Amino acid sequence: MSDSPISRYPVPELNSLPDDVRDRILAVHEKAGFIPNVFLTLAHRPAEFRAFFNYHDAIMEREEGTLTPAEKEMIIVATSALNGCQYCVIAHGALLRVFAKAPKLADQIAINYLHAPISERQKAMLEFAIMLSRTPEQVQRSQYAALYEQGYTDDDIWDIAGITAFFGLSNRMAIVTEMQANDEFYTLARVPR
Amino acid sequence: MSDSPISRYPVPELNSLPDDVRDRILAVHEKAGFIPNVFLTLAHRPAEFRAFFNYHDAIMEREEGTLTPAEKEMIIVATSALNGCQYCVIAHGALLRVFAKAPKLADQIAINYLHAPISERQKAMLEFAIMLSRTPEQVQRSQYAALYEQGYTDDDIWDIAGITAFFGLSNRMAIVTEMQANDEFYTLARVPR
Amino acid sequence: MSDSPISRYPVPELNSLPDDVRDRILAVHEKAGFIPNVFLTLAHRPAEFRAFFNYHDAIMEREEGTLTPAEKEMIIVATSALNGCQYCVIAHGALLRVFAKAPKLADQIAINYLHAPISERQKAMLEFAIMLSRTPEQVQRSQYAALYEQGYTDDDIWDIAGITAFFGLSNRMAIVTEMQANDEFYTLARVPR
Amino acid sequence: MSDSPISRYPVPELNSLPDDVRDRILAVHEKAGFIPNVFLTLAHRPAEFRAFFNYHDAIMEREEGTLTPAEKEMIIVATSALNGCQYCVIAHGALLRVFAKAPKLADQIAINYLHAPISERQKAMLEFAIMLSRTPEQVQRSQYAALYEQGYTDDDIWDIAGITAFFGLSNRMAIVTEMQANDEFYTLARVPR
Amino acid sequence: MSDSPISRYPVPELNSLPDDVRDRILAVHEKAGFIPNVFLTLAHRPAEFRAFFNYHDAIMEREEGTLTPAEKEMIIVATSALNGCQYCVIAHGALLRVFAKAPKLADQIAINYLHAPISERQKAMLEFAIMLSRTPEQVQRSQYAALYEQGYTDDDIWDIAGITAFFGLSNRMAIVTEMQANDEFYTLARVPR
Amino acid sequence: MSDSPISRYPVPELNSLPDDVRDRILAVHEKAGFIPNVFLTLAHRPAEFRAFFNYHDAIMEREEGTLTPAEKEMIIVATSALNGCQYCVIAHGALLRVFAKAPKLADQIAINYLHAPISERQKAMLEFAIMLSRTPEQVQRSQYAALYEQGYTDDDIWDIAGITAFFGLSNRMAIVTEMQANDEFYTLARVPR
Repeated sequence: MSDSPISRYPVPELNSLPDDVRDRILAVHEKAGFIPNVFLTLAHRPAEFRAFFNYHDAIMEREEGTLTPAEKEMIIVATSALNGCQYCVIAHGALLRVFAKAPKLADQIAINYLHAPISERQKAMLEFAIMLSRTPEQVQRSQYAALYEQGYTDDDIWDIAGITAFFGLSNRMAIVTEMQANDEFYTLARVPR
Repeated sequence: MSDSPISRYPVPELNSLPDDVRDRILAVHEKAGFIPNVFLTLAHRPAEFRAFFNYHDAIMEREEGTLTPAEKEMIIVATSALNGCQYCVIAHGALLRVFAKAPKLADQIAINYLHAPISERQKAMLEFAIMLSRTPEQVQRSQYAALYEQGYTDDDIWDIAGITAFFGLSNRMAIVTEMQANDEFYTLARVPR
Repeated sequence: MSDSPISRYPVPELNSLPDDVRDRILAVHEKAGFIPNVFLTLAHRPAEFRAFFNYHDAIMEREEGTLTPAEKEMIIVATSALNGCQYCVIAHGALLRVFAKAPKLADQIAINYLHAPISERQKAMLEFAIMLSRTPEQVQRSQYAALYEQGYTDDDIWDIAGITAFFGLSNRMAIVTEMQANDEFYTLARVPR
Repeated sequence: MSDSPISRYPVPELNSLPDDVRDRILAVHEKAGFIPNVFLTLAHRPAEFRAFFNYHDAIMEREEGTLTPAEKEMIIVATSALNGCQYCVIAHGALLRVFAKAPKLADQIAINYLHAPISERQKAMLEFAIMLSRTPEQVQRSQYAALYEQGYTDDDIWDIAGITAFFGLSNRMAIVTEMQANDEFYTLARVPR
Repeated sequence: MSDSPISRYPVPELNSLPDDVRDRILAVHEKAGFIPNVFLTLAHRPAEFRAFFNYHDAIMEREEGTLTPAEKEMIIVATSALNGCQYCVIAHGALLRVFAKAPKLADQIAINYLHAPISERQKAMLEFAIMLSRTPEQVQRSQYAALYEQGYTDDDIWDIAGITAFFGLSNRMAIVTEMQANDEFYTLARVPR
Repeated sequence: MSDSPISRYPVPELNSLPDDVRDRILAVHEKAGFIPNVFLTLAHRPAEFRAFFNYHDAIMEREEGTLTPAEKEMIIVATSALNGCQYCVIAHGALLRVFAKAPKLADQIAINYLHAPISERQKAMLEFAIMLSRTPEQVQRSQYAALYEQGYTDDDIWDIAGITAFFGLSNRMAIVTEMQANDEFYTLARVPR
């Protein structure tokens, strides 16, 4: 079994890219030690590349939010698993292991968050995220009541929704491009330190 | 029955907004004759406002694409209807009526695209968009084969996926904010000219 | 895009019809100003035409009931939308606009009744109607308890069930005959007076 | 375990009923040797009683049709089983045993028609009836093509649809009234002659 | 309509079987008066025959359990009906009639347990069994709470789960082998004594 | 986040177990270097312990079969993932990595087998296993035709069904006991050699 190509679409040479796109890629390479394939895949269309990562940062790097980095990754892993997105589960599973310092948690949540060792508050967050992701037509005010009971505010709800919605977009682009997760993500942070 | 507020979240005064956000809103007001509520709702968070509309434009105003404006709106109406998003069905239904010059088409597609008077090629496009929107985990290569048979290219497929994915995000934000469609959208272009 | 024929089946000449069937059609024409296509479509089989409209009247014109005309149309619009029936959503959406004097309500309920500006009591009615329509095998006594709490009686429940059941039949006949909604229904009562 | 009442609603005395309703009940008693509970249950509302049985006869006693009595009952049993309607499965299961002279067939179809000893043509009929019954929104022209291939005409399709639609109505009324099947139906025609 | 063969796979001659397998079959023949086809079907693979019936006995003949024989059969009938397994519904429906001394109960539960004349406690048991059988991924601690409220212990829950799980296996083997239920099961205990 | 207990049920001391049960556990400890928790969990009920592992061996160690060890584990991983069983996905994912010598394959199949780098023949096998596991009521002869086309025999189909059915049982017992996967399984064979 040889490896699949990174993307079903052409992957551009770094040299051929607009400066800002290439610079963003070089920066992530510098920071992570490798280039996550989502950067190379989306670089096929620079305008969408820019739109995607700007939206990503607006959601994921919002300073006022109260969700922890690990909680954000829980949402991504749980919803991406149900959407059948290999790239997102494997890449963000790695980040979840890093942020939660919990080497088993990403697999547990990807398979079945109901049996994962997380708090009731986090389960309520994931229950809402999954409903919004999989059956948005069923979301109604009683869901918010359940979240308020766990101490979430309307701003938290917007944050949960924003992450769910953005990574729902990301799942669908990764599926259609057949984006492959980098080998590094599979093994990252699997051993506790 | 009095009208619901525009959004479940605070709607900022135009004067309180960053210049670029306010300018974008004034420009759409100038062009459309009213301010679609998605602008006022998302202005609650300027960073996400910018990210949202930049992504929107990257997808919807891409010049190289071959999908017609009416076809793009068909995708939005069909997938938003299944996701139960009032704002998107009503606002983009209006745009579909405008672009297709077909005053009944938006209602027909929102209720059941299988019975709408569109081409087999357009039905294949919508079948794929709906599968990607509702059951992304089931998308596989045989779907692309069906699209190739109708003359779609891989670049068209990326476009269909991009619209489906972006408006899936949009649906979820509109649902969680309980964004109300402007009255204008309900009646726009309902009478043929 | 030219218009589809009224029905996938032959539509008889008025002159060729039995007297009682023709008289009923002329009476509705007189009253409404046009002949709703359900009359012309079902006239293909006079015995079923008679059975259909007699049942319709027994359900919809029952004098002892407490559901308002607008509430009956809410049930029809909500269940027909989920069943994907263009004729029923568009024709009864028009009637809902007329009876509720609410030009946006039909579209809101057709897309997602959970986000429509109706009372909690009406939402409970629609929740039951939708369960009975879409998953009758799951109906059980706890549903009645929820309706009693909202002040509904067992006779109201029979009425809700009767409308749901009859228009479920109607949806299926409209779908198989590919019955087209008259142009008049699309625009009726869209402007408040 | 004592027997449940015939209906969740009041069952009228025969003497209290309008003459035509009582006469119809006496006639069926004369013919069948017992009164099927659907007659007693619906007699609670004479106008709907009349509408129901007139529609029933228009569908089930149509002379021009080509479906055999056993095939009509197959449709009723298969769709009623999926709708979870005890009355309809048990009463029409008995009729299917009678008409098909096949004492095991009703149970086999109620549990899983795909494994019942019926013809491919009959399976195609049931596949269509079940799709129309359970997911009417998915019915489209390709289904008719499959039926034409098996020799069904458009008039046959109307017949299949009419039976499916009418007994879908019947299922829902039986479920909401909690109509009990008569003991006689459970054992009728279980032994081959 | 001639009878289908007992199994889609070869059915061995009794003489050709290993002694222990043949002895088990002769013993059941002696006791029941006929050989249930599950014995003949699985005898095609003696090792799996032994494993199957040993597991069956470990589950069904466990002495410490508190579920009654009729309750065990209720679980089997309800879950097998949803899995579409003719053999299991018909054979265990017969056993349910025998154990419950209730000639209508098996049909009622097979069609819709929610409308069967059983206790609330038994309905809670079946609700859990059905969730575990059909959507095991949704089982969570709140289900156990509902069972504890009805007086079930954790050992009872293991018993319910064991029966559900084992007959889920049995359903799938019966479906793939197209195992036919013996004629005797269809009529057994249909008349009260 | 501390670790959850091995099982929701009592885990017996090795010394307290019947000799044959303890011997089996010691043997697996000897061979694997640790005791997989399924042994300790099921030892709570020795009779079911014996039945479970005997059935397991009859299915998984059948000598005449043609499925490779890796293919058997693919079936287990794919069906267990959909059933939401952490223990089975993680433990058998480890075995799949070992047998296939493919450190990424288990995660890929658990998330979405349609995008895993396996052969069309293996995908057909998994498609059938998943249908049998998740919607057994829909299995019909056309599925076997698809398998024959890929070169599978009826004996292979029995093997695929047997593994699917047995691990469906296993999934449900692991879910109800809340069986935890051993830490060893999470990391086993993640690095290629």
